[in-house]
Amino acid sequence: MPETLRDIGEFGLIRRIHEILKREGVENPGVSLGIGDDCAAIKPRDGFELLVTCDSAVEGRHFLPDFITPFDIGRRVMTMNISDIGAMGGRPLYALVSLGLKAETNVEDVEDMYRGFARELNPFRATIVGGNLTKMNDTLFIDITLIGEVESGKAVRRSTAQPGDSILVTGHPGRAAAGLHLLLRPKRTPALKKQPLVEAYNTPTHRMREGRAVALTGRVTAMIDTSDGFLADLSHICEESGVGAELVQKLLPISEDLHKAAAELDLDSHRLFYEESDDYELIITCLPTHIARIKSAVAKVSDVPVTEVGRITDTKDEIWVTLPEGRQTKVMPAGWDHFKK
Amino acid sequence: MPETLRDIGEFGLIRRIHEILKREGVENPGVSLGIGDDCAAIKPRDGFELLVTCDSAVEGRHFLPDFITPFDIGRRVMTMNISDIGAMGGRPLYALVSLGLKAETNVEDVEDMYRGFARELNPFRATIVGGNLTKMNDTLFIDITLIGEVESGKAVRRSTAQPGDSILVTGHPGRAAAGLHLLLRPKRTPALKKQPLVEAYNTPTHRMREGRAVALTGRVTAMIDTSDGFLADLSHICEESGVGAELVQKLLPISEDLHKAAAELDLDSHRLFYEESDDYELIITCLPTHIARIKSAVAKVSDVPVTEVGRITDTKDEIWVTLPEGRQTKVMPAGWDHFKK
Repeated sequence: MPETLRDIGEFGLIRRIHEILKREGVENPGVSLGIGDDCAAIKPRDGFELLVTCDSAVEGRHFLPDFITPFDIGRRVMTMNISDIGAMGGRPLYALVSLGLKAETNVEDVEDMYRGFARELNPFRATIVGGNLTKMNDTLFIDITLIGEVESGKAVRRSTAQPGDSILVTGHPGRAAAGLHLLLRPKRTPALKKQPLVEAYNTPTHRMREGRAVALTGRVTAMIDTSDGFLADLSHICEESGVGAELVQKLLPISEDLHKAAAELDLDSHRLFYEESDDYELIITCLPTHIARIKSAVAKVSDVPVTEVGRITDTKDEIWVTLPEGRQTKVMPAGWDHFKK
Repeated sequence: MPETLRDIGEFGLIRRIHEILKREGVENPGVSLGIGDDCAAIKPRDGFELLVTCDSAVEGRHFLPDFITPFDIGRRVMTMNISDIGAMGGRPLYALVSLGLKAETNVEDVEDMYRGFARELNPFRATIVGGNLTKMNDTLFIDITLIGEVESGKAVRRSTAQPGDSILVTGHPGRAAAGLHLLLRPKRTPALKKQPLVEAYNTPTHRMREGRAVALTGRVTAMIDTSDGFLADLSHICEESGVGAELVQKLLPISEDLHKAAAELDLDSHRLFYEESDDYELIITCLPTHIARIKSAVAKVSDVPVTEVGRITDTKDEIWVTLPEGRQTKVMPAGWDHFKK
């Protein structure tokens, strides 16, 4: 019988987590007191601001336990948070992990989840400095608070896009959403886990290095990640900046495998790109004359493509799309809304 | 029909929360970017370390919705977190609130919860700088990360108690636990909500001011709050410090109303004091010669009594109690363990 949380209890689990983090995590010189006290104490560096974000994942809603390993769940939730730090131009430093677990949860699964967290934090020498465990009856949840740093004055906001700015996007939004649709089909085979779109859903990639590289150029006017869906996140920029946007549909970086999967699923690949979430790409705005500079900053840290897809306009809160035949149509912001869907 | 989250959606709710915090929260000069971006950006002050803690509350487990208002739920969960900051000697600055809500949750209840958060944060000019909303099917959860500050080098740890130190405790632990037992009895009347022990459970008081006052004396060797129960938390100090403890039962500050309720409930008031949680009192250790200094530091900020209840010993991890008749008995650390209970 695999060991469950009921067998080792809360404090037993805390000890196991300490051991894993000691063995598989990294040391962070900015932490003066870590797990084992009421709080973690951290020493911010001169010349930096701290960035703080939090994001949760709930079983059945943000991950499907039958189709993702606990290790990958850990990676995925940490990636969601690292993405938010990257979208401001920062790098991650400290995480707090709050878990709602069931008494029958396997200890090994929780340990694997922590290995997943460490897997994503280690490249940045970022560490877990605290957290909380609580018992849930039915539904497992993971809530992570991630603290990062950015050079003072370099944080990139959502509210500072200007009419005339170009709109750029990294990578190929919509692929993770297609992966989720593939998972949700009634006929699922174990091989599905290795399908690249399913992998894009289960273990998405954040663009923290890219976000930080472009932020440090000082040429980005606004930035956001696409975690709510491309259109919803572009509309957040529009709303916060008091501007509108105009997109050119034929410029959208829709990948070949997304087109193929959409056809197979009888879905519209453009809708997957526009409306669905679970990718962690970046939307970046900048003066058109700075695009080359932005692209070269990204090229220095990664192979991910950066594509110009439109312009910021002064038509407040309206997003228009130019269709391939030349006609323009107004699209409503429509992204992931937890409660309305 | 009261308005539910299904009616206004996630982004609608976020707007409402902004409005409440703008109207009923305070401004915090250390926040350069707040809600409305991917992260909050905060500017730490020179000469201070940051303290970070997180604590969750789950419906049915940490609060009973029929017997506590959403406003008081908000106060209670924030108090739990403020208590952790206080137990290190710090003061709260910034909170991130992550909520798992049901689609049928009333909007007004969520607004009231935020009013409760603000009610506890406002006296310290602390603010909510971010958070997350997610949908749950069955069980509401609240997970708060609280960031505070403490003068560099002044954070009080659990791991620094020394044999010979006196053990002090604030207030009257066990009262909140008795309140919970009163709530759990089959016959409950609405008047029960006003019972002082039930109030101690539903809206407990943190000892942040007291914790900070004693920390700044520089005379405290270790400190912890009693959120896991007096004995469990004392055992955390023993474990982390590599020491033991000796308590004198007749010195325990067991309040008259706790004795009375315990008799009525057919429970042992000492067990309520020792083993049960939900109070946020402080356990403080210091040299016996510094007790007067500690007591006078507390008296300057509050009326809460500080009682000496025993000594730290070198019998590693063992906690002994001297009973009224003079006999000594070893008590096992036994507090709140979410998964074993």
